Amino acid sequence: MSLKIAILASGSGTNAQAMMDKAAAGLLDVDIRLVCSNRPDAGVLDRARKAGLPHLALDHTLFAHRTDFDRKLENVLQGCGVEYVVLAGYMRLLSADFLQAFPGRVVNIHPAILPSFPGVHGGPDAQAYGVKLTGCTVHFVEEEMDSGPVIIQAAVPVNAGEELEELMSRIHTMEHRIYPQALQWLAQGRIHVDGRQVHLAPSARPAVTPDGPWLVWPPLEEGF
Amino acid sequence: MSLKIAILASGSGTNAQAMMDKAAAGLLDVDIRLVCSNRPDAGVLDRARKAGLPHLALDHTLFAHRTDFDRKLENVLQGCGVEYVVLAGYMRLLSADFLQAFPGRVVNIHPAILPSFPGVHGGPDAQAYGVKLTGCTVHFVEEEMDSGPVIIQAAVPVNAGEELEELMSRIHTMEHRIYPQALQWLAQGRIHVDGRQVHLAPSARPAVTPDGPWLVWPPLEEGF
Repeated sequence: MSLKIAILASGSGTNAQAMMDKAAAGLLDVDIRLVCSNRPDAGVLDRARKAGLPHLALDHTLFAHRTDFDRKLENVLQGCGVEYVVLAGYMRLLSADFLQAFPGRVVNIHPAILPSFPGVHGGPDAQAYGVKLTGCTVHFVEEEMDSGPVIIQAAVPVNAGEELEELMSRIHTMEHRIYPQALQWLAQGRIHVDGRQVHLAPSARPAVTPDGPWLVWPPLEEGF
Repeated sequence: MSLKIAILASGSGTNAQAMMDKAAAGLLDVDIRLVCSNRPDAGVLDRARKAGLPHLALDHTLFAHRTDFDRKLENVLQGCGVEYVVLAGYMRLLSADFLQAFPGRVVNIHPAILPSFPGVHGGPDAQAYGVKLTGCTVHFVEEEMDSGPVIIQAAVPVNAGEELEELMSRIHTMEHRIYPQALQWLAQGRIHVDGRQVHLAPSARPAVTPDGPWLVWPPLEEGF
């Protein structure tokens, strides 16, 4: 009954690593059918290799048009029996055709409390604005960037004058907790989407008590 | 050394009440020189009367132009020796001239984690979007609505399917804690603004441990 997923990533793949670790620990019921990167030198491919997972470099620069690339990607994922497409630092917009091939089954993580600070610079934009709270958001993907229904969000503090790296580290720590949690809820069939509202069916699993200044909602459950 | 403030409000005045209560309890060093409403029937005026505070109804419908109203308001506040102007549910935009008369000394509270959900429907807009976290923000007022430097923010949970009143109650509870706290920091001279970054000088006062699912930053201090 594992959720058959593909992880798409363009970078070092720390979110992918968090998923692999939770899956290996038996806490996350996913069957990672493929780890795919549009950058042949992406660190995420090494991580997949080390974890013994199927992985593929699909170099987008070798395709003339986005739609050609996305059609190829779609075919590859369908061929692997992928149900859910999990974007983990995937720095390309997905075409409407691709999204229609996985309707309501593409998820993403964004390093801000959406709808604040959408776009590719969520972390530095929040810092430049001077907010006191920022965080991260796992959401379903719609055609408009960073706009789909929200599954889970985390808030973390921002300290005036701190280095961006300090802030990003705090955000990433929460990303690595809320993204596997969101996938586990999907794997358990506990997520129901009604328009823009994402409902989570209750569980007997105890909620995690925050071990620092952060807030996650719905609450993280034991193991995350 | 109390901070000489005027509270401007258009409604029932629950934030004003929270300030009056904290001041009466000796926790908030403000000298409330005037409670002023642009609506003669606003509940906030009753609250001021009961607290024995100077209060004034300045009916905006009796003024032909916003600038006339704001000039009158400015004169009244200057006449009371007001240093800081505290907006607490004040449903009118302040003119540039008014803001220039109190440079960097007008503060406001907004029922959302700005820059998400600016405008007059912060609460319902957040609910309609389907965020999992929203909250409130105390910020300095600039000409563009809900845009000034942020002093303190609170995050609270949003539950899919709940009544708007439940969510608003959660937000208001935090408003009534963070707004007096922000004013106390101003009264203590601990706030320093550098562009969009608001710095808070440290204190020996212990931080409050959250007593429920909320996150405030900078942390609330004992008494708030």
